Amino acid sequence: MIRVNDNFGLLPESYLFSEVARRVKEFQEKNPDVKIIRMGIGDVTRPLCRASVEAMHRAADDEADTATFHGYGPEQGYSFLRDKIADFDYQRRGIDISADEIFIGDGAKSDLGNFFDILAQDNTVAVTDPVYPVYVDTNVMGGRGGKRTGEHHEGIIYIPINKDNDYIPQLPGVRPDVIYLCSPNNPTGTAMTRGELRKWIEYARKENCLILFDSAYESYIHSDDVPHSIYEIEGAKEVAVEFRSFSKTAGFTGVRCGYTVVPSVLKGKDSEGNVISLNRLWNRRQCTKFNGASYISQRAAEAVYSPEGRKQIMETVEYYMENARMMRESLAGAGYEIVGGIDSPYIWMKTPDGMSSWEFFDFLLSRHGIVGTPGSGFGAEGEGYLRLTAFNTHEATEEAMQRMHKK
Amino acid sequence: MIRVNDNFGLLPESYLFSEVARRVKEFQEKNPDVKIIRMGIGDVTRPLCRASVEAMHRAADDEADTATFHGYGPEQGYSFLRDKIADFDYQRRGIDISADEIFIGDGAKSDLGNFFDILAQDNTVAVTDPVYPVYVDTNVMGGRGGKRTGEHHEGIIYIPINKDNDYIPQLPGVRPDVIYLCSPNNPTGTAMTRGELRKWIEYARKENCLILFDSAYESYIHSDDVPHSIYEIEGAKEVAVEFRSFSKTAGFTGVRCGYTVVPSVLKGKDSEGNVISLNRLWNRRQCTKFNGASYISQRAAEAVYSPEGRKQIMETVEYYMENARMMRESLAGAGYEIVGGIDSPYIWMKTPDGMSSWEFFDFLLSRHGIVGTPGSGFGAEGEGYLRLTAFNTHEATEEAMQRMHKK
Repeated sequence: MIRVNDNFGLLPESYLFSEVARRVKEFQEKNPDVKIIRMGIGDVTRPLCRASVEAMHRAADDEADTATFHGYGPEQGYSFLRDKIADFDYQRRGIDISADEIFIGDGAKSDLGNFFDILAQDNTVAVTDPVYPVYVDTNVMGGRGGKRTGEHHEGIIYIPINKDNDYIPQLPGVRPDVIYLCSPNNPTGTAMTRGELRKWIEYARKENCLILFDSAYESYIHSDDVPHSIYEIEGAKEVAVEFRSFSKTAGFTGVRCGYTVVPSVLKGKDSEGNVISLNRLWNRRQCTKFNGASYISQRAAEAVYSPEGRKQIMETVEYYMENARMMRESLAGAGYEIVGGIDSPYIWMKTPDGMSSWEFFDFLLSRHGIVGTPGSGFGAEGEGYLRLTAFNTHEATEEAMQRMHKK
Repeated sequence: MIRVNDNFGLLPESYLFSEVARRVKEFQEKNPDVKIIRMGIGDVTRPLCRASVEAMHRAADDEADTATFHGYGPEQGYSFLRDKIADFDYQRRGIDISADEIFIGDGAKSDLGNFFDILAQDNTVAVTDPVYPVYVDTNVMGGRGGKRTGEHHEGIIYIPINKDNDYIPQLPGVRPDVIYLCSPNNPTGTAMTRGELRKWIEYARKENCLILFDSAYESYIHSDDVPHSIYEIEGAKEVAVEFRSFSKTAGFTGVRCGYTVVPSVLKGKDSEGNVISLNRLWNRRQCTKFNGASYISQRAAEAVYSPEGRKQIMETVEYYMENARMMRESLAGAGYEIVGGIDSPYIWMKTPDGMSSWEFFDFLLSRHGIVGTPGSGFGAEGEGYLRLTAFNTHEATEEAMQRMHKK
């Protein structure tokens, strides 16, 4: 028998969403008349914008004709899309990022999971707690997690996000080589201001760290002092990679398209001290292990930057943010302690009366027919919290809030 | 500065197709009147079949409506597609593979490149020579290649494919842990018969090897004694993973959809001797580092299995195979030594008069305006060969053959 990667044995069973599904199913079977309102999972519900749908129809027709057929595309993505991203998401915001620093992929999850392919495997890693589980699990698979004791892997540096730091990650006591940051944050919904991010960039520059910056929720930013890109911070290009997705911006969770920015000035060192461009390494990795995102998906993404597309996706974002506003007001009015929902579609709520995350989950489900996500599923510091998402309809969100007010 | 993966420094510069492009460009600039015929790159040229295009239109419309919107899909792929594959590609051929052994991905290149994520990193690897470069390069990146001396990496076991073995790989002298096989083969165009494949399965079972079997060109098989799936061979399910693609079957090089079969009986061992299901490990890998193939691409792939879709893709395959037949007859008639083109869209030709691969490339380009791919780009044993593909139009293929007959 072939020898397998031992590190998979160190992974916790990924049971969060399956356990949620199991409990919801059990409840529904016992209570067939209750209309359950799902505010747990982070998937969007609004359809794609018209501009993207029309672009997909045109792209499908392109593929139907020899003269316009598109076969293998560039592994880095088509210029028609890379140019639009460089222009709209960076240059028009005064950020000097060019198209050849942008790599189109099939989603931020893949790129975040694969990025360590180009780094020395024994770099140490820091993540926040709570955290998007993909950062931890991919590092455990890669042999950087080490043994799991309780809720933590002994090889990983955990940076708490909690009430003591206003749910904003602070610099770690122990220096990591690589730092994963997500802002606006999943699951807490909080966003880092320019000043907070600047501290991290200065730290990374001083301590020679690499920041992997996940800004999948960038479109939801409404506060003036929250940067839309990490490259708004001076000096960030030398220390940070930025991961973006069209999933939450344009509802592409099923379409699969995102992008990763690897600035040309971002350098690493090999063990002999040679200075190496990370852009060049990532390019080589993608050319060897990836064959480009779907032509149809890239055309759909391009349409997001058309005048109609921009208007349509902002309408969808505002639709969800109206839900978030409704939830914040209603939950705060009912006496719940909450953060998030201002620059993100997530509300992070403290469980009442010292309930555990799962106790509160069961309470919300059995009493109100509402499904959230237990905060403990995102890490030890998430215990005693629950995540609600703003991705449902206005009607369902409003009804959920009315139910929760009844107590 | 962050420490990078040293192994990238061991990779040869990937200059094959860029060098081809450079020479073609230079020639065209000096000879603007010559109509160049491209038979080098392995991309298809015929449009997608109608059934797939129509499915993509329907899928785009699904995404435009709240009631039919598809967000995150299963990481393993949708049942509508996994069930069709299990039925048509396996069960109807008498092969006992079920839907939960099939993982839909964004193409065989990604899955082939990523599969080692679940294996112990120090497993030894064998590849054929010549070979699809992705097998070698991904293993070098993963630290299993070692130093490159001449055309070979010292950590990799090379299995020659040449005239002495009728261009069919024979069992290696040194035992590898993992063996990459591709049949019908890229670049040689030759295919392994049932008898030849059986030798490998018996070897892998006896020696505890894992075979990674790339059958991206399965649709081109015409010989009765060439299996369409490795699982036609008894005992293969315990030792082999099969990689398939819709790229060459249905022209999906730009659509991005493929699949990987990991049988449930296929097991590995961790370093403590625990027996572990590879299907379970690959499932965990995909759930953590991949978010499913595009919904639209999966619907397009599903349509390939409809009665119209099956008819239409076979017409396209036969179109290319008519080119291959024309090429084989013409080139053999002109006295060239060739193999392939019977069960694959590739012709592997010996260069005449002892020319090197690049010399013959230059000769074909300057004398006839025809672009091939130098065999030396696929490995040391490819020196003295050139690969031609059958993916051009009938008209261009016919003209190319006429030009080559002129000498």
